[in-house]
Amino acid sequence: MTKKKLSSKTHKNKKSKLHRKTGKAPGTVTYMGKREGAASRVTIINYNSSDYEVHKADSVEAAIKHQKPAMLQWVDVVGISDEKFVENLGTHYGLGALVLEDAVNTQQRPKIDEYENYIFGVFQMLYISDDNELVAEHVALALVKNGVLVFQELEDDVFEGVRERIKNKAGRIRNRNSDYLFFALLDAIVDNYFVVLEHLNTRIEALEEEVYENPRQEVAHKIQELKKDVLKVRRWIFPVKELLSRLIDSESELINKDTKMFLRDALDHSIEINESLQIYREMSMSLMEMYMSNMSNKMNEVMKVLTIMASIFIPLTFIAGVYGMNFDNIPELHWEYGYFIVWGIMIMIFIIMAIYFKRKNWL
Amino acid sequence: MTKKKLSSKTHKNKKSKLHRKTGKAPGTVTYMGKREGAASRVTIINYNSSDYEVHKADSVEAAIKHQKPAMLQWVDVVGISDEKFVENLGTHYGLGALVLEDAVNTQQRPKIDEYENYIFGVFQMLYISDDNELVAEHVALALVKNGVLVFQELEDDVFEGVRERIKNKAGRIRNRNSDYLFFALLDAIVDNYFVVLEHLNTRIEALEEEVYENPRQEVAHKIQELKKDVLKVRRWIFPVKELLSRLIDSESELINKDTKMFLRDALDHSIEINESLQIYREMSMSLMEMYMSNMSNKMNEVMKVLTIMASIFIPLTFIAGVYGMNFDNIPELHWEYGYFIVWGIMIMIFIIMAIYFKRKNWL
Amino acid sequence: MTKKKLSSKTHKNKKSKLHRKTGKAPGTVTYMGKREGAASRVTIINYNSSDYEVHKADSVEAAIKHQKPAMLQWVDVVGISDEKFVENLGTHYGLGALVLEDAVNTQQRPKIDEYENYIFGVFQMLYISDDNELVAEHVALALVKNGVLVFQELEDDVFEGVRERIKNKAGRIRNRNSDYLFFALLDAIVDNYFVVLEHLNTRIEALEEEVYENPRQEVAHKIQELKKDVLKVRRWIFPVKELLSRLIDSESELINKDTKMFLRDALDHSIEINESLQIYREMSMSLMEMYMSNMSNKMNEVMKVLTIMASIFIPLTFIAGVYGMNFDNIPELHWEYGYFIVWGIMIMIFIIMAIYFKRKNWL
Amino acid sequence: MTKKKLSSKTHKNKKSKLHRKTGKAPGTVTYMGKREGAASRVTIINYNSSDYEVHKADSVEAAIKHQKPAMLQWVDVVGISDEKFVENLGTHYGLGALVLEDAVNTQQRPKIDEYENYIFGVFQMLYISDDNELVAEHVALALVKNGVLVFQELEDDVFEGVRERIKNKAGRIRNRNSDYLFFALLDAIVDNYFVVLEHLNTRIEALEEEVYENPRQEVAHKIQELKKDVLKVRRWIFPVKELLSRLIDSESELINKDTKMFLRDALDHSIEINESLQIYREMSMSLMEMYMSNMSNKMNEVMKVLTIMASIFIPLTFIAGVYGMNFDNIPELHWEYGYFIVWGIMIMIFIIMAIYFKRKNWL
Amino acid sequence: MTKKKLSSKTHKNKKSKLHRKTGKAPGTVTYMGKREGAASRVTIINYNSSDYEVHKADSVEAAIKHQKPAMLQWVDVVGISDEKFVENLGTHYGLGALVLEDAVNTQQRPKIDEYENYIFGVFQMLYISDDNELVAEHVALALVKNGVLVFQELEDDVFEGVRERIKNKAGRIRNRNSDYLFFALLDAIVDNYFVVLEHLNTRIEALEEEVYENPRQEVAHKIQELKKDVLKVRRWIFPVKELLSRLIDSESELINKDTKMFLRDALDHSIEINESLQIYREMSMSLMEMYMSNMSNKMNEVMKVLTIMASIFIPLTFIAGVYGMNFDNIPELHWEYGYFIVWGIMIMIFIIMAIYFKRKNWL
Repeated sequence: MTKKKLSSKTHKNKKSKLHRKTGKAPGTVTYMGKREGAASRVTIINYNSSDYEVHKADSVEAAIKHQKPAMLQWVDVVGISDEKFVENLGTHYGLGALVLEDAVNTQQRPKIDEYENYIFGVFQMLYISDDNELVAEHVALALVKNGVLVFQELEDDVFEGVRERIKNKAGRIRNRNSDYLFFALLDAIVDNYFVVLEHLNTRIEALEEEVYENPRQEVAHKIQELKKDVLKVRRWIFPVKELLSRLIDSESELINKDTKMFLRDALDHSIEINESLQIYREMSMSLMEMYMSNMSNKMNEVMKVLTIMASIFIPLTFIAGVYGMNFDNIPELHWEYGYFIVWGIMIMIFIIMAIYFKRKNWL
Repeated sequence: MTKKKLSSKTHKNKKSKLHRKTGKAPGTVTYMGKREGAASRVTIINYNSSDYEVHKADSVEAAIKHQKPAMLQWVDVVGISDEKFVENLGTHYGLGALVLEDAVNTQQRPKIDEYENYIFGVFQMLYISDDNELVAEHVALALVKNGVLVFQELEDDVFEGVRERIKNKAGRIRNRNSDYLFFALLDAIVDNYFVVLEHLNTRIEALEEEVYENPRQEVAHKIQELKKDVLKVRRWIFPVKELLSRLIDSESELINKDTKMFLRDALDHSIEINESLQIYREMSMSLMEMYMSNMSNKMNEVMKVLTIMASIFIPLTFIAGVYGMNFDNIPELHWEYGYFIVWGIMIMIFIIMAIYFKRKNWL
Repeated sequence: MTKKKLSSKTHKNKKSKLHRKTGKAPGTVTYMGKREGAASRVTIINYNSSDYEVHKADSVEAAIKHQKPAMLQWVDVVGISDEKFVENLGTHYGLGALVLEDAVNTQQRPKIDEYENYIFGVFQMLYISDDNELVAEHVALALVKNGVLVFQELEDDVFEGVRERIKNKAGRIRNRNSDYLFFALLDAIVDNYFVVLEHLNTRIEALEEEVYENPRQEVAHKIQELKKDVLKVRRWIFPVKELLSRLIDSESELINKDTKMFLRDALDHSIEINESLQIYREMSMSLMEMYMSNMSNKMNEVMKVLTIMASIFIPLTFIAGVYGMNFDNIPELHWEYGYFIVWGIMIMIFIIMAIYFKRKNWL
Repeated sequence: MTKKKLSSKTHKNKKSKLHRKTGKAPGTVTYMGKREGAASRVTIINYNSSDYEVHKADSVEAAIKHQKPAMLQWVDVVGISDEKFVENLGTHYGLGALVLEDAVNTQQRPKIDEYENYIFGVFQMLYISDDNELVAEHVALALVKNGVLVFQELEDDVFEGVRERIKNKAGRIRNRNSDYLFFALLDAIVDNYFVVLEHLNTRIEALEEEVYENPRQEVAHKIQELKKDVLKVRRWIFPVKELLSRLIDSESELINKDTKMFLRDALDHSIEINESLQIYREMSMSLMEMYMSNMSNKMNEVMKVLTIMASIFIPLTFIAGVYGMNFDNIPELHWEYGYFIVWGIMIMIFIIMAIYFKRKNWL
Repeated sequence: MTKKKLSSKTHKNKKSKLHRKTGKAPGTVTYMGKREGAASRVTIINYNSSDYEVHKADSVEAAIKHQKPAMLQWVDVVGISDEKFVENLGTHYGLGALVLEDAVNTQQRPKIDEYENYIFGVFQMLYISDDNELVAEHVALALVKNGVLVFQELEDDVFEGVRERIKNKAGRIRNRNSDYLFFALLDAIVDNYFVVLEHLNTRIEALEEEVYENPRQEVAHKIQELKKDVLKVRRWIFPVKELLSRLIDSESELINKDTKMFLRDALDHSIEINESLQIYREMSMSLMEMYMSNMSNKMNEVMKVLTIMASIFIPLTFIAGVYGMNFDNIPELHWEYGYFIVWGIMIMIFIIMAIYFKRKNWL
């Protein structure tokens, strides 16, 4: 698998990609993702309220020929490292050069831009991989007159539910226009952010338990990893709120008034997600605080053991030392019960110390 | 009891609910609460300035037939897991599908939306259960022309005072329109947030005492729990301020100018509540700080005991050790009062050390 | 004395008061202060540029009869637990029910509301009591056409200077209208906030010294108390800035353009006070930080003493122990000057260790 | 010297001044500075593009008679504790009572107010005294039709450069109007804030070194002093940005469009200064953090020494103790090389421990 | 090399520069950079869609004579310490005195100002030097009707890519107007900020590893250095976002609508860079937190070793001490196997203690 994991390794990728980019003229379509060399494959779903057909294509020409005037078209491009392919296909649908540059720029910040004949958006699909890693996948959506173009990096995506609904005529999707499809895809992306929240929440809860039960150094490490993940996820999700809000206020003819009502719903969700992320951020900070306090506790405990052992036995050892001296004239040494008296004194000291520490709540 | 408690367990619920939802088409009315399977019961209160009647109904048909043109109607639906029931009833009163989806979505963020013929709001009622737990219960309110619809999860609610006032003709409620009833319900929800503030305040005060008197690890744990509760409560209460403010600025014909004056009062309260929460948040952070400082204090005390014991007895033990050596030629050993002189020296050292530590304020 | 002190006990009061309130209809005039049962007394000051008279009254009727058309009237109601009294008097001067509810609600957040015939404001007078406690007293002001109504809880207030100026014809107060009196009272309230700042500043300075000289646990406790007081005072003072600013922008005919110039001055002061509070907040946080760092220092010192004593005497004791062994064959024991050589070695070790610790700056 | 130093002692001054003020009517010109009793002296500079003259005056009458219609006039009043003097002079130039109150109120927050015939501003001149203390001096500027009035507390100021430029016909100052002089004085004040930044920067750098080299308690103390100074300086400088910005947007006829271009430059500087202060604030917080981490480091080092000494010698002492026992039957004691074998064992233990600690990187 | 490194030494430079400036009249063109005395050299690139020529010049006259009406001109001035040179050249192209002052003021905050005939901007070029230091170089850009003027301090810059594109007719640059060249230069500056982000990111990652593996004091030092660098870089980059946004909204005729589309792209990048810097800031704070927690961990480990050693051997030494006493009557001493029994007891104690510490997870 070559998915983008939220690990520090992706940064090295980013570096080299950036270097590849720096110096090129703006508007040069340059792939900056991580699946270099894989061919682009296109899946085309044509549908209207009565008909439905699915086509696969490996070339731009093959893809284009499936366009049909009376049907809405969802063109789903998987694999965007073939920059020429994306450029040709996009140009066919009327997308500009700067836009196509963003479509293949996997480092692009989420954005929605309106143009005269189309609306173009870039997002990060976030989902949990089979090996429980948080995966971020760049996806670009373009709403054109009679359809939606999707550019994604990998086979996996979060649109399976939308495909099902189109296929099964579920909900209203088959009776509505391309703007509803555009919304449905956005909605699927936003809905999946909730899954990421759950993933983060599960990690927080697990760490909470570990902090209380066994605050080792690895736990602190994991907390820091969590904090970093929350920061990164937040960075991708945070702009979405603003983008949706702008889309709702947009006066573009491409978006129907009815659809805006649904977009408002998605906006609500994205606000909720951002608030949750904020809470997770504060909770991860609390976790670190808790970790430090538990560390202090452990330390206190260690010191108490040392103090109790030393405070009890050092004076006793001193007494034993006194009667181990070799002075000619130590009268006590010659008392018949001297040894036993000393034992008595030592036991008394022991008991007094024990009571003292008990009173201090150290035992 | 199946109330929603502010514990981490609700999160697991949330997860599974969310999974149930993900993939469905937007606008599908899906119950996401925690009392699965319980039937919906409707209580209908019809009233005007002179008359007053209460009806119970178990089916939508039974509920609908109690509508009377000359009376205001408060339709109170308890139990919203029967999605069909809610959908039918809501549709009868003219509520849209997306709105009804929010009505049964117990995870919905507080919101107020205005539509042409009705105003719809979602809130969290917060109250303290009999076993002193903080309970959050989802409630949806819809203001329609001649009445108010309430959708709540459980029998318990915070509207008992409103019912009393309607029944006893107390205050102005019987002489006013449905918008006043809507306000009265909102006001009851907001007023009850003060009770939550008291609950939090009591916990803060209790923790303050515990921190000073016995800063054990459980106290740190409780402080963190408090911080989390403040965060969560704040999340539910924070939007209310904004929502009320928007309602006051609204130009909907459903809301009378007089009622806005009362809404302004509720807005004042919600601002005050938010400020208190902010203060509680800072106080809970101070608590943790105080806890850490008291831990440090304890540690200091432990270390002082160790240092005093060790500093006094280790040199004395050394002296005893010296005269325990077996050299053939140790002149002091043969002095008549050698033993007593050594004791004198040791007592002097002891006194000097004690004075030294006294001066350092360690004793 | 029954003044409201900034102690945690007021919270319990608040709780019971709130409970008393919850469930009543909005607009029910309910006293929520702390001097239950005390009768209301009214002091009426009538004045114009030439004449001046003071009247006392115990009943609403007695108070009302002192109204004179050609004179400005300052009606000062002390003791607001008699809700009926306040309601009757207020209604006579044209104040609404919701407004009178706020007048007796001692928990009311500072506010200024404009109505057609009057302007109504609620504030907290803050002053230092004789036993050096910070006292907060609820006060409500209503500016009506020909005078000002004041509702306060206790005899003590911050208006003595205003009374003097009216009596002595000092400044411009006798030649101006009721809006200037209203401003003069506001100004007196705001000016007294400076006294509170001094009180807080004095505490901060005292704590600073204590932190450096004797960082005991009580100091940390006092710092936390200070932080809480700053938070609470800030909560009462913070809204005043905004309120004055709105009053200056108001288009009410009750407030003269000249008076607004003075209000701008009061606004300046309230901004300055808020900035000072912000600085005090940061300084109290620094205090805690300083306390923790001094605690660490003390700890370091304690540990150094222990380490020095142990590091010097443990090796020496070991050497003494070696020559206390009872082996048949220990050649050194039989050397003539063995004992003295060992002493020499031990003194050398002592000196080396002392130099080592000196170099490390531990002595 | 009686300059205002940024020390805690000024606060006591402030207190008594404030008390002196509280209770007086607004608009009463009351000096609140620290050079009580010093007489006011006036320096008058008359100039136009061709002529230039300097006059000194000790009385208002003497000052006024130097006014000349064809020349711009800079009236510089040093010493503002003689309130009558300031009031008379100010009134002559048309300044209002509230404005003159601010002119002598040395605690006044920075402000710029526009009136019909003049523009009035209050600032704090900040400069470094000869004994390297940060000095804040209150200064009030009034731009009138044909000149500028300056009210300052002390002889020292930051306007020497402006005087030179007027005298030497340097730059454009002689050819421009009074608004340019007003700007030039503002610019001198703002430019001197850079000197304060340098002073703070030098202290930060010195503290950084001290923190790394010798983190004693005094360093923590100095860091806290620095933090307090940054807070206070920021409080005086922060409003300047806003004030200049408002002045640029002002429509007063007193300020020429050309001069606004220069004001924009001063605004740029004040923004830069505020950003630097923000950075200094964060750096002073980092300093404290660094101090704490170095303290921890020292502690770690102390503990390591103790642990190493104790861990090595306590077991060895135990072995010596074993062979110091007086049992009749201890076979080892009678071995010929028993003593040497025990030495061998002890040296081995010593070496093993040393290697262990070496491996742990503690040595 | 005399590049400006992000070290504390530049501050001393700044100080003296500032002193040089203070007191001069505003609008005096004063160089404030670090390459005092170096002569200015000018490189002139003339181009249009068909032609391209490069000229070098050492004097203003030589530079001016290369101006050609039908070609766009990029005038690149390297070395700005010769203030007269800059002033003459700038004046020739119509730039004002205040603008030229900013052009040579290397401490100038980033800004873009629009004038009637030109647009002027100041930025900091950030790049990584060959010895891996972060270098900040002041650059000023002026967009005039038929070209762009660049004023930079050093030979090195970030414009090499732009020169290549002009030379090789790459992209659209040869076919567009001077505003596109202006954009291309801005874009090159912003693109290079990504390189700085990578540099910071690499340092963060390296420090993360060091913190986990070897948290010495130098690491804390490096973290603080990183924090300071992030603060400083942020200060230079932060205003760029706002400036570009204002440029896009500008109504200047100098900037074409098409070019604004490209500027929007650069704006996107600058937003992204600011967000990254914000994340780096939080990550550097986390690093310090992690460092402190690892320090605590180390301390805990040290204390455990001490506690285990002391707790085991002090009681054993005590027992040995007891049987080293010289009482006449100690029965155990005369038991045949007394010595061995005591060994047994001591071994038992040892085992019990070991099990105890094992259970506590300290071993």
